[in-house]
Amino acid sequence: MNRQWLYARQPRGKITPDTFQWRETAIPQPQPGEALVRTRLLSLDPANRAWMMGKTYRDALQPGEVMNGFAVGVVVESRVSGLAKGDIVEGDWGWQDYAAVPARRLTKRTVDAPIELLIGPLSVTGLTAYFGLLEIGQPRPGDTVLVSAAAGAVGSMVGQIARIAGCRVVGTAGGKEKCDWLTRELGFDAAVDYKSDNAFRALRAACPDGIDVYFDNTGGPVLDMALSLMNLRGRVACCGNVSQYDVEKPGPGPLTVPGLVVVKRLRLEGFIVMDFYDRRAEAEARLARWIAEGRLKAELDILDGLERAPEALIGLFEGTNRGKRAVRVS
Amino acid sequence: MNRQWLYARQPRGKITPDTFQWRETAIPQPQPGEALVRTRLLSLDPANRAWMMGKTYRDALQPGEVMNGFAVGVVVESRVSGLAKGDIVEGDWGWQDYAAVPARRLTKRTVDAPIELLIGPLSVTGLTAYFGLLEIGQPRPGDTVLVSAAAGAVGSMVGQIARIAGCRVVGTAGGKEKCDWLTRELGFDAAVDYKSDNAFRALRAACPDGIDVYFDNTGGPVLDMALSLMNLRGRVACCGNVSQYDVEKPGPGPLTVPGLVVVKRLRLEGFIVMDFYDRRAEAEARLARWIAEGRLKAELDILDGLERAPEALIGLFEGTNRGKRAVRVS
Repeated sequence: MNRQWLYARQPRGKITPDTFQWRETAIPQPQPGEALVRTRLLSLDPANRAWMMGKTYRDALQPGEVMNGFAVGVVVESRVSGLAKGDIVEGDWGWQDYAAVPARRLTKRTVDAPIELLIGPLSVTGLTAYFGLLEIGQPRPGDTVLVSAAAGAVGSMVGQIARIAGCRVVGTAGGKEKCDWLTRELGFDAAVDYKSDNAFRALRAACPDGIDVYFDNTGGPVLDMALSLMNLRGRVACCGNVSQYDVEKPGPGPLTVPGLVVVKRLRLEGFIVMDFYDRRAEAEARLARWIAEGRLKAELDILDGLERAPEALIGLFEGTNRGKRAVRVS
Repeated sequence: MNRQWLYARQPRGKITPDTFQWRETAIPQPQPGEALVRTRLLSLDPANRAWMMGKTYRDALQPGEVMNGFAVGVVVESRVSGLAKGDIVEGDWGWQDYAAVPARRLTKRTVDAPIELLIGPLSVTGLTAYFGLLEIGQPRPGDTVLVSAAAGAVGSMVGQIARIAGCRVVGTAGGKEKCDWLTRELGFDAAVDYKSDNAFRALRAACPDGIDVYFDNTGGPVLDMALSLMNLRGRVACCGNVSQYDVEKPGPGPLTVPGLVVVKRLRLEGFIVMDFYDRRAEAEARLARWIAEGRLKAELDILDGLERAPEALIGLFEGTNRGKRAVRVS
């Protein structure tokens, strides 16, 4: 039997359990050119929510489809050369136990690492942090790097990579507990609770030399605050807009764009991790080495059971996760 | 006698004649290290208004000071080596007949060109268009380039330089007359009246292949429209925010920042022309050649008489100018 979560209906405002629908159906038969994959881990990402809103860098989700999402699994039957039973693969086959997937939509993983690292730190999450920070943000040693959603999957890695790059690192996160974790466990130089009343003053105090690089996962109020503290020729790596994904009405745009962009000669640049996939081997090797050396902590936040996938995604927008959230399916 | 316009008081909303105050005073004596300059032409620029709002890339204007502004003049007495009576100089000595200016704040001009070209097309205006478009916008032949305030001093040159660079050029301007001028006289491929009811549809129709480079002089609604029509990896050269300078309350920020910036991998980058002054000889030589060849029309909009300077600046925000606005003082 193949258990699935369907994307049932477009949410108004926040996603709820009703956004999804449970279905049990037959395990599919792979066709020539396909492999049958059994899901091991599902990745929960803010992008899952963004896909519900319309066309982005991919087509919008359509109600009735299996809920999409990045996953890692094992090949249980192959009708394609180059993939064999037992191979570990990644792809976007969504929230289900099994999927028959065309070979071109699967990537075989041969990295010698626990499978949990392949759902994020040594895959999309890690690559997003690595390339977004280093290629788009272009930090130099001594720079102050700010990252929003710093206790999240990408943000927690961005901050640690910036430390490795010789930067001073400040993160924003929701609540004191996460902020303490950033400074005590992950080596951030400072962390600011963006929900606190005096967030702007705290951020300014945490960045006495201003901000040279801002890695923006959130947009919204933290982007506004960051822009006003950016130094001349600062870089903003635009990775996500998570403050605006799970809302009914989008908030206002950043008031200081383009005014401060001109005056401070700022550069705001967006990116999608897939743009850098031709260089993923380089990045994965470095991330794996840093993890092995203990310089990079890959925090995992794994819920057990496919049935918990909606709860896991809903919680992502409530900030219940710390580090990389995933669901263990088998 | 030295006639001056002082910056009298910070405007609330639009500047008015009351923003300025006329004064007649003695001609200053140059001190050692200074030259006494007689103003020939004053440049009227949106930046003049921005300086009233607070610190930008320079300190804010202070009430009681002589109104600042870029000017071209002739040395009438020199107490500094390297400058002699009769030399043509440029600098920011403001709205007055005469000024005693330290040598470091003067630039001697030796370009063999009518002095009217030195107040804009072969100085700040031309350099802003040249470097902003080519260095920040990085157009490639065949790209669609959009420029806002296209009938203005900078915009009209940006569009023509983009044509020289092999691009398809679209401009926005206020009113049919300016739009007709852009397409008939300056070689723009299309022009859109941003004040018309169907501006967005007209802009979309004028950019059937989307926008690769947007040279943004205005911010505001045209920035919003441009962002939604930008192509993947499009570049926005952030030059000014003139739609927001002469208002009491700034308008909303761009709603699609950072959302579309991420999805389309856009790059928004601000610049100030002075950042490129080490390369100004290269740019001026090319601009002068293009003007001499008739490939670049340097439209001038000159009002006669220092007493008209406030009117000239006020009109700039009402869109009464076409091309480079200046005031002839002597």
